[in-house]
Amino acid sequence: MYSFQNDYSEGMQPAILRALETINYHQNHSYGQDIHSDAARDYIQEALEDFSVDIHFIAGGTLTNLTFISHILKPFEAVISAETGHINTHETGAIEATGHKVCPVLTKDGKLTPDLIRPVLDMHENEHWVDPRLVYVSNPTEVGTVYTKEELEDLYAFCKRHDLYFYIDGARLAAALAAKEETHLTFPDLPKLCDAFYIGGTKVGAMFGEALVLVNENFKERFRFNMKQKGAILAKGWFLGVQFEELFKNNLYIEAGAHSIAMMKPIKEAFEKAGIPLLCEAPTNQIFPIFPNALADEINKKYLTTFQCKPDKDHTCLRFCTSWATNENAVKDFVEDFEEMCNRLL
Amino acid sequence: MYSFQNDYSEGMQPAILRALETINYHQNHSYGQDIHSDAARDYIQEALEDFSVDIHFIAGGTLTNLTFISHILKPFEAVISAETGHINTHETGAIEATGHKVCPVLTKDGKLTPDLIRPVLDMHENEHWVDPRLVYVSNPTEVGTVYTKEELEDLYAFCKRHDLYFYIDGARLAAALAAKEETHLTFPDLPKLCDAFYIGGTKVGAMFGEALVLVNENFKERFRFNMKQKGAILAKGWFLGVQFEELFKNNLYIEAGAHSIAMMKPIKEAFEKAGIPLLCEAPTNQIFPIFPNALADEINKKYLTTFQCKPDKDHTCLRFCTSWATNENAVKDFVEDFEEMCNRLL
Amino acid sequence: MYSFQNDYSEGMQPAILRALETINYHQNHSYGQDIHSDAARDYIQEALEDFSVDIHFIAGGTLTNLTFISHILKPFEAVISAETGHINTHETGAIEATGHKVCPVLTKDGKLTPDLIRPVLDMHENEHWVDPRLVYVSNPTEVGTVYTKEELEDLYAFCKRHDLYFYIDGARLAAALAAKEETHLTFPDLPKLCDAFYIGGTKVGAMFGEALVLVNENFKERFRFNMKQKGAILAKGWFLGVQFEELFKNNLYIEAGAHSIAMMKPIKEAFEKAGIPLLCEAPTNQIFPIFPNALADEINKKYLTTFQCKPDKDHTCLRFCTSWATNENAVKDFVEDFEEMCNRLL
Amino acid sequence: MYSFQNDYSEGMQPAILRALETINYHQNHSYGQDIHSDAARDYIQEALEDFSVDIHFIAGGTLTNLTFISHILKPFEAVISAETGHINTHETGAIEATGHKVCPVLTKDGKLTPDLIRPVLDMHENEHWVDPRLVYVSNPTEVGTVYTKEELEDLYAFCKRHDLYFYIDGARLAAALAAKEETHLTFPDLPKLCDAFYIGGTKVGAMFGEALVLVNENFKERFRFNMKQKGAILAKGWFLGVQFEELFKNNLYIEAGAHSIAMMKPIKEAFEKAGIPLLCEAPTNQIFPIFPNALADEINKKYLTTFQCKPDKDHTCLRFCTSWATNENAVKDFVEDFEEMCNRLL
Repeated sequence: MYSFQNDYSEGMQPAILRALETINYHQNHSYGQDIHSDAARDYIQEALEDFSVDIHFIAGGTLTNLTFISHILKPFEAVISAETGHINTHETGAIEATGHKVCPVLTKDGKLTPDLIRPVLDMHENEHWVDPRLVYVSNPTEVGTVYTKEELEDLYAFCKRHDLYFYIDGARLAAALAAKEETHLTFPDLPKLCDAFYIGGTKVGAMFGEALVLVNENFKERFRFNMKQKGAILAKGWFLGVQFEELFKNNLYIEAGAHSIAMMKPIKEAFEKAGIPLLCEAPTNQIFPIFPNALADEINKKYLTTFQCKPDKDHTCLRFCTSWATNENAVKDFVEDFEEMCNRLL
Repeated sequence: MYSFQNDYSEGMQPAILRALETINYHQNHSYGQDIHSDAARDYIQEALEDFSVDIHFIAGGTLTNLTFISHILKPFEAVISAETGHINTHETGAIEATGHKVCPVLTKDGKLTPDLIRPVLDMHENEHWVDPRLVYVSNPTEVGTVYTKEELEDLYAFCKRHDLYFYIDGARLAAALAAKEETHLTFPDLPKLCDAFYIGGTKVGAMFGEALVLVNENFKERFRFNMKQKGAILAKGWFLGVQFEELFKNNLYIEAGAHSIAMMKPIKEAFEKAGIPLLCEAPTNQIFPIFPNALADEINKKYLTTFQCKPDKDHTCLRFCTSWATNENAVKDFVEDFEEMCNRLL
Repeated sequence: MYSFQNDYSEGMQPAILRALETINYHQNHSYGQDIHSDAARDYIQEALEDFSVDIHFIAGGTLTNLTFISHILKPFEAVISAETGHINTHETGAIEATGHKVCPVLTKDGKLTPDLIRPVLDMHENEHWVDPRLVYVSNPTEVGTVYTKEELEDLYAFCKRHDLYFYIDGARLAAALAAKEETHLTFPDLPKLCDAFYIGGTKVGAMFGEALVLVNENFKERFRFNMKQKGAILAKGWFLGVQFEELFKNNLYIEAGAHSIAMMKPIKEAFEKAGIPLLCEAPTNQIFPIFPNALADEINKKYLTTFQCKPDKDHTCLRFCTSWATNENAVKDFVEDFEEMCNRLL
Repeated sequence: MYSFQNDYSEGMQPAILRALETINYHQNHSYGQDIHSDAARDYIQEALEDFSVDIHFIAGGTLTNLTFISHILKPFEAVISAETGHINTHETGAIEATGHKVCPVLTKDGKLTPDLIRPVLDMHENEHWVDPRLVYVSNPTEVGTVYTKEELEDLYAFCKRHDLYFYIDGARLAAALAAKEETHLTFPDLPKLCDAFYIGGTKVGAMFGEALVLVNENFKERFRFNMKQKGAILAKGWFLGVQFEELFKNNLYIEAGAHSIAMMKPIKEAFEKAGIPLLCEAPTNQIFPIFPNALADEINKKYLTTFQCKPDKDHTCLRFCTSWATNENAVKDFVEDFEEMCNRLL
């Protein structure tokens, strides 16, 4: 069965595989202090057009989030997140396990706004409440929506006025950048839009690995101590470095995002044509169509997707996801299959 | 200014003060292993008609909640609480600081029901989510409502069916028991209705101190280790014991709750007469009337109350609280003052 | 059986008891923001001759230590303590429970020195090790020895040179101050000798309560948030304040320390006369004599003491402790009994 | 400069690289629930001759240790470790960060024995102390010594008698197994010798990855919840599985250990011939020779090694380490160089 379940079902970019072969017997310095990690940091700084940021490579988004957040908050400080935010739902309480409350905010589309954050600040008035100190967003969000450059600017300005840190979880950042027509977002914007963010590798054709970018000076000192304590320093750290070296030296990173979006386009169009609504408007490589139950069942007989929710008893919302490796023919086949199912069932 | 701000503004029951004088120079065993703590445990077991429960005395509700919850949960297990629950709002993230997520549930009156809990369980389907393991309720709740015996029975039965622990925060348990006409709740019911609960002393005329009652066998072993680690064992532990000895040896505990409710009655009636609505129906010693702003301002010129919220821009909701020590004349004076204010302002 | 087990077996100073009676029905502001806590803070600042320090009252030494240490350290920072230090032995891992390692240092007399700390710093060279950031000492120590003013000056100067914080656990500070002939230590010295310390109340005739004094500006901000989170803010906080008000308004604090030392003097002399060695030279109210086993057994038949250790199979080391309430006649009786035992057994 | 610094300077076993190529475009189930992880689990169970154990793959030793230990201990339980144990020194307080004390034991050769553990148990007598519950050893140890099968049997029997869990950190387990003549240890022995252990991959030619083997039934339930919370589940988990598949399907794991020891042999003999003593007798792939300073300096001009300590001012102890990838010619060259240096300098 072909899988549209997620964007981390296939291996690695061929360029990465070739690099692994080339350097396999080289002796490297350990713990991320090797020439490949250094080169990757250089490439990323160039892409960001900012040579003052610190960059650390960590194997996995949850590990990145918990290491970063536990580094910057005092014990009684908390994180504000959309109720659907990854740290509030799908990380098994990783942030709380480091001692910090996540304050969830209900949203209609997975996106925070200053107007949604303000009441949280008002409520937390004294030492009987946690002190919200960090605003966490994912771009794209967990429901496939994106923040535009302008929305991020507003959020960051609001955060600075209220002495809040602002952090962007970029597990799928490549898609937000590739969807530049909608987001107006480019790499050099990022260090100007937040205190820290991470550039997700896993979902863009790395084996594993995220590049955490620390912009705010206050976060930089002794960050590696917290990484080591949380188990986030790999002995053979160059395996992280070499992947980001390849992803960044020829613009592969954004191309991979663009490919995943391009592969989603025909699928999205087919759903539109069939009158299938989406949970939210989502311009990237993951969408959440709401099918009549019978159609959802039929799809799941031939394709792997992820169950999202039951908006009502007659409908089923599934997640469809394409990736850097999604095959054009597989997409074509799916669209044909889908049209045939619609003809039969609708 | 007379204070109706809370039920912890005055000192201690005179019986406790007399006991302190009597035993002041006695030499006692330390750390809660003294004759007064033992006697208090005996009295409480008698009141509960259950001699199998373990009882520990701890100075303060937050310390009791965090010590108990951190003792019984595994790292990835979480607590389900009403969004208004004390542990979710007014304990500065104490539970999260021990590593555990609090899963908040929106309610209309501060009370959980099986129907409100079920969707939380459904959502937390696998290891990417925390594992909700404990249901936390306060009785009375933080907005003055109460759970009846029948409601607690339903909740506990639901919890047992779903392998959840059930815990009652009894910071104001005396009021829930004194409001027996509404709650049908008596001391001997409690060990049959939950896995653990605490009997609040601070708000019923103790200097400080809560009696944590462990019903579930699984919780009992080495509980004192966790107490000591959390700073919850007092060197001169008999100062906790002697207070509960006095509160329980002559039924003082429930009488104190009854007094506080009796003192609230004329106030509540005055509000009703004036057409002042309450945030929720609340049969105990704390109520949340919603005043026109001008009336709220006038009250606050002569009396201390606690600001609760602004339901709309023209109204102000205040907390009124009476206590074991509230003076009958003070209540009479307030009612007269209030009627005069109403005549003038409404 | 008369008890020399510890200095927290008796109740409270009579002056405190009288104050409790006087104010019992007063309505007070809660959570430590009342007039008694304010007055106590004023008295202590006067005694310290320093009006810039912040003072917080907390019920118990373990709770004070864990609240303070978790407030000032980053996740990967650690505490250096004598191996015999209270936080390393008798607090059930309270510091580790907040996430921080305690680095134990072997000493011959329970006392740290710059020469003992230096190798710890040398060993912790990079991010693979915790980063030692706080030096913790108790004065008097857990084995009854004391630090002189000069020794504390040396330690603090060393700490400042090495960017370490310095904290003094003053559970029995009254004794160190009362032993001024040995320690040369006065109240006004303390804020000049460390970044923070606490003035123990429990062991000097308070019911409970320690006064944490924050000297270093960096520690002061939002400390009450951490207190609330750790369960260290009492609702009826004036019960802490009023005790320190009484202990400090007429020099009662140091007098109590002096009384406990005076009561130890005849006991110590009796041991000396009988040729009983001490574990360490200890000029305060707790000593650790090493008896032949038979003599230790005989003592324990008539008096309560605390077992310390077995230095060899023929000897038993016991802790003897006197207190603010120790009775002169009880001491006289013990000395006579002891001499009789020696005559019989040695 | 050729490096003898450690056994994690080179990439991966060629068999692993080939497997990565073969499966690169396959679509796999995520989070470790794929066919390669399953196959690897099967191979390991076969090697262990035990089909009841649970096996989890985690990227890195620190992450494995902290995830495992935080899963099995209650908040007040502690770990007993040699003072030189990896968790006590080189993991930046990772265990304490999950709330648990590590109780360090001084040893002469990095190895625990029942006689060394017993006094720790005796000292921790009640709830004022942490409750030691887990004994942690590394085999080989951090100073290159090994535990024999018989020593592990003794330790495990002791642990069972005292209700302690027993855990073996196998970061370099391949070497302990390859040194079978000294250790008498085989794979099938391991599940009979402890409650849990891990099979280190990183130091035996994996890119990264350790296989945690849970033997004790009590540890198995919901372990993946704790893994996810600690950031220890990789999205593309088959990258862990496929490595262990290759390491175990043709006995590569132990061969790699044997190679590393074989490469050390000529080096060790050269040191012996030159009269260079070792810190401890160490039969595996890492040794700690103690050189006159001048000789150490000379070596470090041409080769990378790791500084260990200065046993006295005239001598320097270095760590020499060989690996699965160490080149026979490089060893030959070193031995010649070393002999020439000795001739010149000694």
